[in-house]
Amino acid sequence: MRESYTSSKEVSTLIMSASNPKIKQIKKLQQKKYRQKEQRFLVEGPHLVEEAIQAGRAESLLQSESAKPLAIETAMEPLLVSDEVMKGISATKTSQGWLAVCKLPDESLPTEGNLLFIDGVQDPGNLGTIIRTAEAAAIAGIIISEETVDPYNDKVIRSTQGAIFHLPIVRADLREQMIAQQQAGKVIIGTAMKGHHYREIDLESRDFGLLVGNEGAGVSNELLALTDENVTIPIVGQSESLNVAVATAILIYQWSNL
Amino acid sequence: MRESYTSSKEVSTLIMSASNPKIKQIKKLQQKKYRQKEQRFLVEGPHLVEEAIQAGRAESLLQSESAKPLAIETAMEPLLVSDEVMKGISATKTSQGWLAVCKLPDESLPTEGNLLFIDGVQDPGNLGTIIRTAEAAAIAGIIISEETVDPYNDKVIRSTQGAIFHLPIVRADLREQMIAQQQAGKVIIGTAMKGHHYREIDLESRDFGLLVGNEGAGVSNELLALTDENVTIPIVGQSESLNVAVATAILIYQWSNL
Repeated sequence: MRESYTSSKEVSTLIMSASNPKIKQIKKLQQKKYRQKEQRFLVEGPHLVEEAIQAGRAESLLQSESAKPLAIETAMEPLLVSDEVMKGISATKTSQGWLAVCKLPDESLPTEGNLLFIDGVQDPGNLGTIIRTAEAAAIAGIIISEETVDPYNDKVIRSTQGAIFHLPIVRADLREQMIAQQQAGKVIIGTAMKGHHYREIDLESRDFGLLVGNEGAGVSNELLALTDENVTIPIVGQSESLNVAVATAILIYQWSNL
Repeated sequence: MRESYTSSKEVSTLIMSASNPKIKQIKKLQQKKYRQKEQRFLVEGPHLVEEAIQAGRAESLLQSESAKPLAIETAMEPLLVSDEVMKGISATKTSQGWLAVCKLPDESLPTEGNLLFIDGVQDPGNLGTIIRTAEAAAIAGIIISEETVDPYNDKVIRSTQGAIFHLPIVRADLREQMIAQQQAGKVIIGTAMKGHHYREIDLESRDFGLLVGNEGAGVSNELLALTDENVTIPIVGQSESLNVAVATAILIYQWSNL
């Protein structure tokens, strides 16, 4: 065992025990209920940790003893932990010795810009990829239903590649939000098995709200009945449907004129 | 233990041991080297097993004792196995009691139609989603580089949602194939960080070959130098790039006029 000591220059001590109270508290944030309770979430790996710092969202940092330095400067003093402790706390093999505790943001939707409504997407990779694409195309905000996977799940965050720090994501009642956004002048468009061809929609320069649904069931009929238009992306092969992240990307890029 | 017996009407006996030689041989197909050696691969779950049967690609079937019947008729007699044996043989929790052994196809590329060239995609979900989108948009064939993940990996197959049975996927030298397809009259277009805006490309009704690359590194410079054009999809947010399956989908749908 390596000795842990603090010299006059070293302000951090090395945490070598997984039962350290701070470590135990951080590890709990891998569970959704503790993220809700503590209003905190974790990001892992140098790239995401750097994004969190630059976005002003990192509250504290953890660095394992053998981790390489970050590529950016930060005044924050990381908590030093042994490689074993880091391994125990990481959800993945990809932490590469870096972890940040971030505050769950208190998000609100902007009044201007295009929106995305997500009705029950379950796969973390799909939700993360949708967030990444939405941010790349300057979507102003995302509203997710109660049944949608937690966006602060580590797999979702990894798939966003950091985009999660750059646009508001609000969990709310989709029905209420869709009606409110229609009253505010947005065109709300749903995705359905039978709808208009997506290239036929003329937004007349208005902002849009795109509604996409669950991997298996799609958007609920109740919500589809509320939209201004419903659209379909044509399929000319034998596949029954497109992946939801793929369909969302095709529509966002079409209507954002990108 | 339940007794295993054969009545006059039952032709199959129930396999209850994981060390049964047939079972051991099938389980090996979860490894790439055995798939190559045996020229066979596995699909799991009733939906994919049905797709394999309908495509004429299932060579033998495995059914666990508690599995629900398939939704389609088949003259093939499944090998009956205990739930424990099925659990041991499945790569996933999603087999739902059904598994098919399929022959690796002896694929060749068609002379007509649009093609996709894949340079080193590593994530099974990305490759599977690309295959699913390509099939939906009637891409005629896919050429993958040596470094690309095995398309007969169970995660890839699941992400294709069965599309893997409906279009040829050939592993070959991309450089040679690109040159051959150019000589055959196709426009080969690469994806790059700096290129023409993708909507500016006029294919003049010619077939295209789209070249996409690895998640981190993109397409190799050597290959980009060989293309007729290189294009970029604009990003107006802070993201550095789009997911490769998303970018591929946007381009395929744009140029297929779908």
